Amino acid sequence: MDAATPSPPTGSPLFSRIRLAVPSDVPHIHKLLHQMAAFENHSHVCSTTESDLSAHLFTSPPFQSVTTFILEVSTKPFPEDSPHNSNANYIPVVRMLNSEHPVDDPDGEIFKSEDENVVVAGFVLFFPNFPSYTGRPGFFLEAFFVRKCYRRKGFGKMLLSAVAKQAVKMDYCEVFWLVKNWNVNAMRFYEDMGAQTVERKIYTLTGDALQLHQNDD
Amino acid sequence: MDAATPSPPTGSPLFSRIRLAVPSDVPHIHKLLHQMAAFENHSHVCSTTESDLSAHLFTSPPFQSVTTFILEVSTKPFPEDSPHNSNANYIPVVRMLNSEHPVDDPDGEIFKSEDENVVVAGFVLFFPNFPSYTGRPGFFLEAFFVRKCYRRKGFGKMLLSAVAKQAVKMDYCEVFWLVKNWNVNAMRFYEDMGAQTVERKIYTLTGDALQLHQNDD
Repeated sequence: MDAATPSPPTGSPLFSRIRLAVPSDVPHIHKLLHQMAAFENHSHVCSTTESDLSAHLFTSPPFQSVTTFILEVSTKPFPEDSPHNSNANYIPVVRMLNSEHPVDDPDGEIFKSEDENVVVAGFVLFFPNFPSYTGRPGFFLEAFFVRKCYRRKGFGKMLLSAVAKQAVKMDYCEVFWLVKNWNVNAMRFYEDMGAQTVERKIYTLTGDALQLHQNDD
Repeated sequence: MDAATPSPPTGSPLFSRIRLAVPSDVPHIHKLLHQMAAFENHSHVCSTTESDLSAHLFTSPPFQSVTTFILEVSTKPFPEDSPHNSNANYIPVVRMLNSEHPVDDPDGEIFKSEDENVVVAGFVLFFPNFPSYTGRPGFFLEAFFVRKCYRRKGFGKMLLSAVAKQAVKMDYCEVFWLVKNWNVNAMRFYEDMGAQTVERKIYTLTGDALQLHQNDD
């Protein structure tokens, strides 16, 4: 073949989209959260229900309180007339990559999205924080997950970048998050993205110890 | 003196009040934040201005985004007709203690409050978080400070309890915060209040590393 002739595309095209979650995504977010808890060996402390999420995820305009980005994938281009393309608060990020092999998704059926041929592959959930020494808000990234069969394709970076870009757009000062101490793969990934560690001790007042304070006089 | 006759009060009475901050408190909050930064050896990273605080502290009803409680003290009872007594969102907490000696407050003049004879002694600044595994919001306690001459009188506990009680009242699941690794006095105080440590690595994406992501495609 002549060197000037482009090679025909190889592999399997995989289209991806990051968009704002809407209330009808709650069942998927709920399942992703429980898969994330299983991955983190925290299933025993993950009690979130769909109604908890419905009650707390859409109480204000996007980015003003808890906000969720949904990662979707499709082997076909995303439909141009999808209602998700026209959200006034956020223009979806769309990419195409050539996967070496088609992705074998064992949970494809339960993660089917509203748009035809589209599957939910991951999410990131975040809310504004306020690092008081900077005097500017940031985002606290609370949950971040890509389903197993879609890992190592750059989707994690795409999700985290989407939050970082939104922070820059809003003139926010940081994206801040916590990582389980054993998750060295995640740490390497975060450090490659330019994140820095913060040395602090973390405290929580919760459960009975929190309830006790209602009687403080 | 007969044992049945109550002893006359000894020491110097010190009245204290915790109330919601209002926009006119910004200059005091600003000074407290910079005193806190000096205490934490972080003055070099504390760039917050009064206009930053004015822009971000009162953007929503109390407890829905960044919220500040102000601790005030007075050697006289708080005036009953203070406008601060009638905030619909929060009933102030008022206490009286007998201090062994009158407090010598070198900064009393610059921390004078709106009410006569009242001085601002500390504050706590917090905002809602969303521990996703619980499915219920909590409070992230971002800044917490009592001025030096008012320490060791129970005011720190009073401030933290006020946040904890508000969390319980709203059916929130936790109060969560970070402590500098060297601040063992604070850790002891928090553990005495029933707080537990959380073992995580903390990351932040900020400054140039954050800005770089605006070009991610």
